[in-house]
Amino acid sequence: MALLVVGSVAFDDITTPQGRAPRVLGGSGTYFALAASFFTPVRLVAVVGDDFTAEDEAVLTDRGVDTRGLEHAFGKSFFWAGEYEADPNLRHTLKTELNVFENFDPKLPAEYHDSEVLFLGNIAPELQSQVRDQLGARAKLVGGDTMNYWITGRPDAVRHFLSRLHVLSINDSEAHLLTGESNLYRAARAILAQGPAAVIIKRGEHGVTLYSASQTFGVPAYPLEDVIDPTGAGDAFAGGVFGYLAQQNRWDDAALRRAVVYGSVMGSFTCERFGVERLRSLNEGEIAARYREFVALTRFDE
Amino acid sequence: MALLVVGSVAFDDITTPQGRAPRVLGGSGTYFALAASFFTPVRLVAVVGDDFTAEDEAVLTDRGVDTRGLEHAFGKSFFWAGEYEADPNLRHTLKTELNVFENFDPKLPAEYHDSEVLFLGNIAPELQSQVRDQLGARAKLVGGDTMNYWITGRPDAVRHFLSRLHVLSINDSEAHLLTGESNLYRAARAILAQGPAAVIIKRGEHGVTLYSASQTFGVPAYPLEDVIDPTGAGDAFAGGVFGYLAQQNRWDDAALRRAVVYGSVMGSFTCERFGVERLRSLNEGEIAARYREFVALTRFDE
Repeated sequence: MALLVVGSVAFDDITTPQGRAPRVLGGSGTYFALAASFFTPVRLVAVVGDDFTAEDEAVLTDRGVDTRGLEHAFGKSFFWAGEYEADPNLRHTLKTELNVFENFDPKLPAEYHDSEVLFLGNIAPELQSQVRDQLGARAKLVGGDTMNYWITGRPDAVRHFLSRLHVLSINDSEAHLLTGESNLYRAARAILAQGPAAVIIKRGEHGVTLYSASQTFGVPAYPLEDVIDPTGAGDAFAGGVFGYLAQQNRWDDAALRRAVVYGSVMGSFTCERFGVERLRSLNEGEIAARYREFVALTRFDE
Repeated sequence: MALLVVGSVAFDDITTPQGRAPRVLGGSGTYFALAASFFTPVRLVAVVGDDFTAEDEAVLTDRGVDTRGLEHAFGKSFFWAGEYEADPNLRHTLKTELNVFENFDPKLPAEYHDSEVLFLGNIAPELQSQVRDQLGARAKLVGGDTMNYWITGRPDAVRHFLSRLHVLSINDSEAHLLTGESNLYRAARAILAQGPAAVIIKRGEHGVTLYSASQTFGVPAYPLEDVIDPTGAGDAFAGGVFGYLAQQNRWDDAALRRAVVYGSVMGSFTCERFGVERLRSLNEGEIAARYREFVALTRFDE
């Protein structure tokens, strides 16, 4: 089942304690699409500037990502520069240049209108709702992300977006901010009360927890000895989750649990190299092997 | 198999966002002993002052804890006052009065000399090593805890203590401080290199990870909607871990995993009421039920 993702395609300048990657391909849509491409056909809606080359696009198309929804606009692509502390949860944004992303008005190509699984990456909540409207009832499963900037600045638009979402995938600080609840379990309950059938709360090196009316599921993070670059790990996580759900064409409790583990697998690989490097070199065998490592990491006798 | 614990027995004045408990029975030895008592016979070595009443001692003996090693000294018992923020990981010490604990010189009653499982709670590292010496080769399994105060102030004594320990149970900030490693996996490897066969790193609401040469095992925290009082949760965790290991009289990989889950069960119950209240009202059926909840919380299809 085809998975449609709307998000950002950007260039990043990344500094971590392990080194620096100046001007590498990034953006939430890129990480999501590459990760999801290992599970299902992926369609990407995003905007890039004239600095985005055929070589950049080939990073996506080499993995089979459908880029007919990638709009080429005049100007420069979204640019982000950031630096991580030794604790990879601590990140400082050095520069954000929205560029062509500032006037992004996502339009779905006619060929995308039969998409049944949709993921609305971290863009303005009004745009998220607008894309969701374009698909209407055809969208069987709608997932989404948001961030502190929108939660604080556009609370009503975020609330409206949440009310039309099946699965929200956010990190713990966003969950706290969104609900005013310091306790994660209570924050999750408050989010579920706003509409989503499930909420997945990402906690970086502390793992992930999935909450729905019928279940709570927790999985620890994969123990990485070296986190080279955590950029995009959350987006690759979401790509793994929704890629797997679209592949399976079911999202019952058991499928959601496996999806969260596949998401964790994809997020952990992403941290092993700068930018999208590791997602580009990855293969299905490595994904299956790491899934089994998650089984070994978490199993205990009943 | 009898489990001997050396630790503190104290009075605590606890303030949390949920309320206040003025002068309640506490201390690492108390929480550990009560939690472990659900699994195996427990022997306690600690010191109390003349403010410690027969009623206080009955809290321990009612759960079958052997208090022949509880020394009654002239003066007041160890007293601690602290306050927690809405994030239960953020705790402020308002007052620490060592009192009789300042000159604690742990002596093992003759009846304790056949103890085969030993847990050295958070006391001065020289005292931990001294107790360990008193048991000598009879101690088949030696576990221990330490804290930032000793790691910073007595690094050599902590190092010596570590070299003679089988299982270290500490929290994440202590693991970072002990090794200078910001990455938990590397911190764990560095600790294992210093002697222990296994290290259990407690991460509060983020769960627990167990590391040894042969395995890594992670378990999320139990999702508690209301954390009434986190005091003693880490000690009750350790009590569950070593109580279970002593009960089983084995500490292979699979037993260690189950022990970590039983520890998580005991830690989670402890947070549900102020002080040791919940440990006092607890029963075996509730423990078994929560263990099954941990199974449900963590299982996914292979």
